[in-house]
Amino acid sequence: MIHLGIEEFIALPESEQVPYIGENAVIYAQQFDRNNLEYLCRLSDVARKIHKIEKGADFLKQLLRHRLVLNFFIQPSSRTFLSFNAAETILGMSRMSVRDAKISSISKGETLSDSLRTFLSYVDLVVMRHPEDISCSIAYWISAMASRRLNINGENRPIPIVSGGAGKAQHPTQALLDIYTLQKSFENVGGIDGKTIMLVGDLKRGRTVRSLSYLMKNFNDVKLLFCAPNEYKMSQDIIDFIDKNDNISYENVDSISDAITEVDAIYMTRIQDEHDKLTHDLGHVKAENKYVFRMEHLKQMKKEAYLLHPLPKRDEIEEAIDFANDPRVVYWRQERNGMWMRVAIIAKLFGVGDQILDF
Amino acid sequence: MIHLGIEEFIALPESEQVPYIGENAVIYAQQFDRNNLEYLCRLSDVARKIHKIEKGADFLKQLLRHRLVLNFFIQPSSRTFLSFNAAETILGMSRMSVRDAKISSISKGETLSDSLRTFLSYVDLVVMRHPEDISCSIAYWISAMASRRLNINGENRPIPIVSGGAGKAQHPTQALLDIYTLQKSFENVGGIDGKTIMLVGDLKRGRTVRSLSYLMKNFNDVKLLFCAPNEYKMSQDIIDFIDKNDNISYENVDSISDAITEVDAIYMTRIQDEHDKLTHDLGHVKAENKYVFRMEHLKQMKKEAYLLHPLPKRDEIEEAIDFANDPRVVYWRQERNGMWMRVAIIAKLFGVGDQILDF
Amino acid sequence: MIHLGIEEFIALPESEQVPYIGENAVIYAQQFDRNNLEYLCRLSDVARKIHKIEKGADFLKQLLRHRLVLNFFIQPSSRTFLSFNAAETILGMSRMSVRDAKISSISKGETLSDSLRTFLSYVDLVVMRHPEDISCSIAYWISAMASRRLNINGENRPIPIVSGGAGKAQHPTQALLDIYTLQKSFENVGGIDGKTIMLVGDLKRGRTVRSLSYLMKNFNDVKLLFCAPNEYKMSQDIIDFIDKNDNISYENVDSISDAITEVDAIYMTRIQDEHDKLTHDLGHVKAENKYVFRMEHLKQMKKEAYLLHPLPKRDEIEEAIDFANDPRVVYWRQERNGMWMRVAIIAKLFGVGDQILDF
Repeated sequence: MIHLGIEEFIALPESEQVPYIGENAVIYAQQFDRNNLEYLCRLSDVARKIHKIEKGADFLKQLLRHRLVLNFFIQPSSRTFLSFNAAETILGMSRMSVRDAKISSISKGETLSDSLRTFLSYVDLVVMRHPEDISCSIAYWISAMASRRLNINGENRPIPIVSGGAGKAQHPTQALLDIYTLQKSFENVGGIDGKTIMLVGDLKRGRTVRSLSYLMKNFNDVKLLFCAPNEYKMSQDIIDFIDKNDNISYENVDSISDAITEVDAIYMTRIQDEHDKLTHDLGHVKAENKYVFRMEHLKQMKKEAYLLHPLPKRDEIEEAIDFANDPRVVYWRQERNGMWMRVAIIAKLFGVGDQILDF
Repeated sequence: MIHLGIEEFIALPESEQVPYIGENAVIYAQQFDRNNLEYLCRLSDVARKIHKIEKGADFLKQLLRHRLVLNFFIQPSSRTFLSFNAAETILGMSRMSVRDAKISSISKGETLSDSLRTFLSYVDLVVMRHPEDISCSIAYWISAMASRRLNINGENRPIPIVSGGAGKAQHPTQALLDIYTLQKSFENVGGIDGKTIMLVGDLKRGRTVRSLSYLMKNFNDVKLLFCAPNEYKMSQDIIDFIDKNDNISYENVDSISDAITEVDAIYMTRIQDEHDKLTHDLGHVKAENKYVFRMEHLKQMKKEAYLLHPLPKRDEIEEAIDFANDPRVVYWRQERNGMWMRVAIIAKLFGVGDQILDF
Repeated sequence: MIHLGIEEFIALPESEQVPYIGENAVIYAQQFDRNNLEYLCRLSDVARKIHKIEKGADFLKQLLRHRLVLNFFIQPSSRTFLSFNAAETILGMSRMSVRDAKISSISKGETLSDSLRTFLSYVDLVVMRHPEDISCSIAYWISAMASRRLNINGENRPIPIVSGGAGKAQHPTQALLDIYTLQKSFENVGGIDGKTIMLVGDLKRGRTVRSLSYLMKNFNDVKLLFCAPNEYKMSQDIIDFIDKNDNISYENVDSISDAITEVDAIYMTRIQDEHDKLTHDLGHVKAENKYVFRMEHLKQMKKEAYLLHPLPKRDEIEEAIDFANDPRVVYWRQERNGMWMRVAIIAKLFGVGDQILDF
């Protein structure tokens, strides 16, 4: 129970909602501390490993065999949607989806709140992507207030909510999989602590870079380099957040070329012109030359540096790099890491993480 | 086999189609007598109870593990679609769906009849929602005539058809779950017999109130109060049906306030303006003041009276009531009852109901 | 690994792509020789038979219980989509689908190549229908080049690709199920060798008749009769293919009536006006009188002749024939055969065919 009305709850800043959410939902990157992150990364690794043997795969598949999940995605998605679905099948969940408001009761004038409460009547988990920044926050409040509860390891818990991307605000599971990818990449060179990471592209509207920046506070001496055109600069709330945290620093750089030889990781992003109705109608915005990653940059990168992208990409990475078979190009592996991280996230929510670690 | 052509069959009044349907399909509320209703309610209760323990959930999940169902819903639906899907997974069925005529062969000019016969080639159950009143009747005729048969407890049976709502005609599983909700609500006060139930809103086009009225004939001394604006009055065929049945009576009332203190249950409905192209384009029709359920009505209701709604709702119930936590507000529980009733309906169709009762 | 760039690979004629594909994918009818066809038909038969008993159905359902399939169909489909899904559930696979480019990352400007590579990050099989003739060929190249591999009977194999219809080019699984239907029909009269088969309708754009013609080279003395309006005549590449193969011959006939008494099978097809934007907007093209199969033709057919249609159909078969209950009308059975053939195709791809034959 939350002793606040819905209007009051969603008006709270993200960080003040976090204590109410606890372990019941995954909505904000700010919910995760270093212990959580390390637990989830370890869980992802173990799940991946035991799934390779039949006995392990059978074990995973019976864990949540009586849990039913709704994947409620009313914004376009391939990757996040499919990788959640894949993770859910690995854990043996039954899945349903709502992807199109037109074929749902929303078309009969039902409110988001009523739709969500209906979903919560049937399912044991809601994974959602929604165009409104506060959508997942609303969903969590409704779940916390609704009478239906799940028994999770002897506790009565509200139906968990997992954000698969909320408006322009956050995309916490993407940030978690990015951390997992960075951690695996830097496994033999001391982990994420002390590394320099360049973020390139649409930093203003990329909810993944926002969530990732929040998570970085959990590591020591991380330096972020922001490389973005003027109109897509990182927004002030994230700058303020970094300024308040001694663990992280940032710097603006003018082009990929300016810093490519120094970075340990480069995180490319796409110009999110779907938020920009006008240019959307005129066709996609092209990435400017100095924000495009090319073969020459791959040559200049350190031997132990890595190229990430949350995908989908467009022209901000030169095509030849896709099949370059260079071990530093990790964005395809990053996708599959995402599936394993989502296995870990769901397993943890349902209190079966330790069973997996103990297998 | 039906010894009638399709045109002759669908031209029969509903009540004359009933003997042809038997236990092979769920299309009309008129198929159910008191014995059936009590069996289905008992089955819903037992399934719900045994699902709470792991052994019970495992038992349910293996019952129909080799049965494949198609959820063929080409009208918008959230609740009915999801609750059927949830029920199907509880019984371990494999599920497929067709929700959009544009991505199916209907877009290549295939007739409904051919589409249905195709579905019947692959699946063991068709649950369908369709804009045509006679669509489920057509589907049943085709299934009865097609050569593919299922072995159900040693009998050769046509592929079962379950209506999830047919045009403006009927929505029998909604009526069954309404009965289940009323029966559970009145469990300690003598059941549905002798109760007074007010139906409010769009009684003319609400297929759920039509189906519910038909089911009421199975109870003794039920009094229905119809509370609807002139343009949405209950249609004459239902009035005639009630007049012919000594068990039920009806009365028209002018507003919720006029009868709220006397009723044992109040069943609210939404104005179904999706059937009304013109107003649909102009935005949704607002419920008139005297047909809106407000906090003051909740205060006036008897202690053992209940508020139901088939949902989705719009403005016909005041928002504050959603989270009022009043045990008499049962519409959210009604949704979950629907899932269990659908478990019971499907289990009965496949002849595994007694196994569940004997668990 | 293919030692060709993607442009070079897709520029190869189909028959020269075949050696690169091997047993890793099902894209062209030319991949199948008589041994393959007989193996697949036997496998279909055995799977169908053992599925009738509970122990057999349980056996099939555990075979691929840890494999995840994506059904990527971005052209309309009911039959092929549903029958693949049904086949997949019989083998216990977990299924996901992408059916609408608008709700996928394609709407954010992602290329087909990137979308496919993403899918290949999560799933163990991609079944696809796509409007581009070379789409499945592209998918195969990407899968062959991507780093993720499956362990199939101890071999490291690329993620398999199965075509569910590629543009106007081919529809190999339809041709395989057609062969299976013919083989079962002619079971007691010496099989397909020596038979005369009339193909009627839109032979130019019917990808099923193209694929079927390729498969015919595997049988002895098959005579094809082409019966098509001038504007929909069989295309020259197929004619050339037949001319080069001594096993098959062809002849043009002017109308169904001209040859109906001689044929062993008649394969009807629909005018594929969805490829023809203009007429599509004007409504569907009606089949000309002499290309319509009528009750009178059924009367004229030999006792051991069979009527097939890949479906969907429109007006090219008289309605009364649908429920004629004539054993020579096999198009509905042909649909269900398709499900079993797809079980066989998938089982073979994952190296579990012999296990099924040995059950």
